[in-house]
Amino acid sequence: MTGMSETEDVITRFWATAEARDWAGFAATLAEDVVYTMPQTRERVRGRDAYVRFNAEYPGDWHLTVQRLVAAGDEAATWLDFRVGNERMVGITFFRLDADGLTSEVTDAWPEPYQPPANRAHLAERY
Amino acid sequence: MTGMSETEDVITRFWATAEARDWAGFAATLAEDVVYTMPQTRERVRGRDAYVRFNAEYPGDWHLTVQRLVAAGDEAATWLDFRVGNERMVGITFFRLDADGLTSEVTDAWPEPYQPPANRAHLAERY
Repeated sequence: MTGMSETEDVITRFWATAEARDWAGFAATLAEDVVYTMPQTRERVRGRDAYVRFNAEYPGDWHLTVQRLVAAGDEAATWLDFRVGNERMVGITFFRLDADGLTSEVTDAWPEPYQPPANRAHLAERY
Repeated sequence: MTGMSETEDVITRFWATAEARDWAGFAATLAEDVVYTMPQTRERVRGRDAYVRFNAEYPGDWHLTVQRLVAAGDEAATWLDFRVGNERMVGITFFRLDADGLTSEVTDAWPEPYQPPANRAHLAERY
């Protein structure tokens, strides 16, 4: 087990600079050839400039809080509490860093609420 | 950076035994007071027996492949390729282990496909 790893530090800065709209600081966490992949929409954004713009242009007065951060070696995963006005979403992101310790792969998912099936009501409580 | 950590080993066995329907082996990765939380449906399953049943009773001839596993200290996160017949889903799970190295918290999410908004088509390609 390690303490605050370099990977954990980069990913902490990644989200802190995004939340602060510090786009120069955000860009400094990214590899020039970073690839951002959204499996739910099958979209991909290539390159630091495009990915910074994607985030800077993302609509709404959004705010994020990192609920979980797991970092090991050159990989990390985060669970975000993401809010836009009164709307509250979960954002989950997996990262890979390159040999320079910069973020080279970002893959995320935005799971939506749904109604649970009745066939497991004998095992699951609601909260 | 560590090698194959104990946490990584437990979570690898967690998914391998689930895939194998080895419910005794699966139970052996769990704390007796494990809590499983599904934020999308706000469901919670408490205790090893109920959680093993939840998985054993889960309908369909499902199969899973672990695409990503990040484990550090007493935490881990996985990204699954999950298939039921021709249906293919993404399953994302965060874990916490107790002092005995057994899984005490499982939180998962099942993001669904959606149509991308047009306002970012200038930055994102489709794949």
